[in-house]
Amino acid sequence: MRFTICAAKPEDCKDIARMIMELAVYEKMPDQVKISHKELERDGFGPNPFYQCLVAEVPEEHTSKDGHTKVGYALFFYTYSTWKGRTVYMEDLYVMPEYRGKGIGKALMATVAKVAKEQHCVRLQFSVLDWNKPSLDFYLSKGAEDLTAKEGWHFLRFHGIALDNLGLEAP
Amino acid sequence: MRFTICAAKPEDCKDIARMIMELAVYEKMPDQVKISHKELERDGFGPNPFYQCLVAEVPEEHTSKDGHTKVGYALFFYTYSTWKGRTVYMEDLYVMPEYRGKGIGKALMATVAKVAKEQHCVRLQFSVLDWNKPSLDFYLSKGAEDLTAKEGWHFLRFHGIALDNLGLEAP
Repeated sequence: MRFTICAAKPEDCKDIARMIMELAVYEKMPDQVKISHKELERDGFGPNPFYQCLVAEVPEEHTSKDGHTKVGYALFFYTYSTWKGRTVYMEDLYVMPEYRGKGIGKALMATVAKVAKEQHCVRLQFSVLDWNKPSLDFYLSKGAEDLTAKEGWHFLRFHGIALDNLGLEAP
Repeated sequence: MRFTICAAKPEDCKDIARMIMELAVYEKMPDQVKISHKELERDGFGPNPFYQCLVAEVPEEHTSKDGHTKVGYALFFYTYSTWKGRTVYMEDLYVMPEYRGKGIGKALMATVAKVAKEQHCVRLQFSVLDWNKPSLDFYLSKGAEDLTAKEGWHFLRFHGIALDNLGLEAP
């Protein structure tokens, strides 16, 4: 199946928001999604964009059962390692179920890696749920290292009241 | 003991580089550190800084055994959640051993939380090694959630040849 990978445009944000929700349903946390295409437009396409996004599109003859031609996305941004310098973090990689197994996910991820190299980043990082074996196996087969399994890194978060209270303790 | 928390200045980068190495030694991975104060200056103080940093300083009468008054730092940057929007990620939080237990680490972290709130971020995230119980207990006691333990998030990375090869597969 033919497909193209392009940098997202503001008018893609409705499709991206739809796929963010599809991914959250797959990850069993749909009630966590609090942003809409309006925030995605504001945050990704202003003078200081908070993220970059690639969209995978199929030709019209391969339109999905429910009428979509934007069938996958990869959303990423730049972070910083105090050991290695500039790094890319891939927040989301998603392909709609009926389009999996056709190389679209690999092409999205490879394009993020290409951008990372062009921007002199020496790492491409991301997080995966431990029960999501198909994704984990896919990434490991491509040469990714599982830093949580190998070195013991745990991912921590302050949010809600804990974040409010912490901020109030600032001198 | 009195101390101050201030935004890092370019001339602090030698102290920050020194403490980055001290933290890497504590984390048992000193050979991983490949950047110096020069990259820190370039990357943190240009027109598009890749990170922000806070430095903790003590008065001269409390100079460290080896002659330092910059005794801790917190380095962070903005990331993006497709569920919640803008987020702060704290890459490093460090206080020199002889200055621990005096509230400096808490003050650094609380200041990062305050900046996060001011910048309309709803999360403060970071990573901790699972064997680093003193740090883990400290964060959990302040209300942090361990997302790896609770939800199963693993932290993955492409680097080196794996990243090169992945980029070459881009369409």
